[in-house]
Amino acid sequence: MCLMGNELFDTIKPDAYHVAAAIELFHNFTLVHDDIMDAAPLRRGMETVHKKYNTNTAILCGDVMLIQAYDYLNKIQPIYLSKILHLFNRTAREVCEGQQIDMDFEQQSSVKLSDYIKMIELKTSVLLAASLQMGAILGGASEGNANHLYEFGRNLGIAFQIQDDYLDAFGDPQKFGKDVGGDIRQNKKTFLMLHALEVASPEQRAQLLQLMQENPLDKVQQVLQVFRDCNIDDWAKSLKQQYVNTAFDHLEAIAVTSTRKQPLKELADFLVQRDY
Amino acid sequence: MCLMGNELFDTIKPDAYHVAAAIELFHNFTLVHDDIMDAAPLRRGMETVHKKYNTNTAILCGDVMLIQAYDYLNKIQPIYLSKILHLFNRTAREVCEGQQIDMDFEQQSSVKLSDYIKMIELKTSVLLAASLQMGAILGGASEGNANHLYEFGRNLGIAFQIQDDYLDAFGDPQKFGKDVGGDIRQNKKTFLMLHALEVASPEQRAQLLQLMQENPLDKVQQVLQVFRDCNIDDWAKSLKQQYVNTAFDHLEAIAVTSTRKQPLKELADFLVQRDY
Repeated sequence: MCLMGNELFDTIKPDAYHVAAAIELFHNFTLVHDDIMDAAPLRRGMETVHKKYNTNTAILCGDVMLIQAYDYLNKIQPIYLSKILHLFNRTAREVCEGQQIDMDFEQQSSVKLSDYIKMIELKTSVLLAASLQMGAILGGASEGNANHLYEFGRNLGIAFQIQDDYLDAFGDPQKFGKDVGGDIRQNKKTFLMLHALEVASPEQRAQLLQLMQENPLDKVQQVLQVFRDCNIDDWAKSLKQQYVNTAFDHLEAIAVTSTRKQPLKELADFLVQRDY
Repeated sequence: MCLMGNELFDTIKPDAYHVAAAIELFHNFTLVHDDIMDAAPLRRGMETVHKKYNTNTAILCGDVMLIQAYDYLNKIQPIYLSKILHLFNRTAREVCEGQQIDMDFEQQSSVKLSDYIKMIELKTSVLLAASLQMGAILGGASEGNANHLYEFGRNLGIAFQIQDDYLDAFGDPQKFGKDVGGDIRQNKKTFLMLHALEVASPEQRAQLLQLMQENPLDKVQQVLQVFRDCNIDDWAKSLKQQYVNTAFDHLEAIAVTSTRKQPLKELADFLVQRDY
């Protein structure tokens, strides 16, 4: 994303590779620490760091990865360093905040959809948005253009998460690959479930809460039936489309030729229209 | 230390406060994460973060403190930023390495004194040394002078740890305050114990290992008797003096007037000659 943000405005600068490496290290640092917090045994089909070594080593490993990320940032030209550091630090803080809010949600019986969107924005969207914006800055973008690109990424990130939640419930098992209905089985708070709990009739709401508590064998089918009765599938598609439209409006507003925007458009279409 | 490093060469610059704040945040980040790793219930007489909240929150809390440290660094003048970041990153990495080596030592039956000194250097000395050096850089010190100040701090840090280990064994309980003999009771690897195991006769060595395994009521007294029979107290004093002398040689070599060095001399004397 950082490289694409750079290329939207100019040929790729060597600095963009350093910043991209820093972002990649940062992202993987968050995965190492998140996997400890979630007690996850697997990541990308392999043992997680805390499983393979131990929790203490995984904590330190993440710490050093974060430090190394800053060492990559320190390779860029001094004129960009302070600006990039400022954006990187703010984003890093937000990602950690998002993770804390996500953990808090697990302890709460009810979560408002607007709070869930805020959490997704912090945990997922801002890193995507900031990656694009850092690339834009290194590509010499004006502040206005760089901000539009940030907003493109932020809205795209939310649309991506809606699509992800949608596919987990309504995806074609043949194409989706992952275990369809996994979120429902695990009582995960998703866009679909939170909205369903907000719009369902008192009876439907009671049924959903009972299904989550009792975990019957046909839980996934029963929850999906309530989702369909409440038109959650159409609602999700339309909400996703709103975020996609806002994202594309911001991309449109950037003052470069349409051909330069083509790769970002294709990536966005791929991310939010995929059915697998 | 950062402020004193600055003041050795010039009046305190505003940047020195930012860097000092970054170092303080970094140091406290390592304490929050170390306390998780050591399962420590108390820190400075208060509940540790992971005890008061929970481990996941303490991991994230430390992560954000590290990010905030970099935000303080990003407040300094751009001309110093890259140089300070470079030194800060290297030091931060070394401190994490030191912590990992310290944990590794707990699993090892025998540790060489030279490896223990290397661990102390990484875990304790380099942060002290780098704090002084960062202050020196901001105070406009030449590279040679800044390096001498780093070496002063590095050697002083090792002398300080020897003194700490010495007092835990041979300190006056009236003055020391802390529980004298605590390291011995906990079978901690210290300068004294590692050297004793290296120089003791086969019989004394066997006695020490047996005492560590069997934990008799008079273990502290018996271990201290072996230490005295092997002249460990004199050896520790002389080793400490070697590091102090090297530290002072480096301070001496710095090209500023003697009066400017007085506060650092007093601090050093306080740190390594204290009997409490």
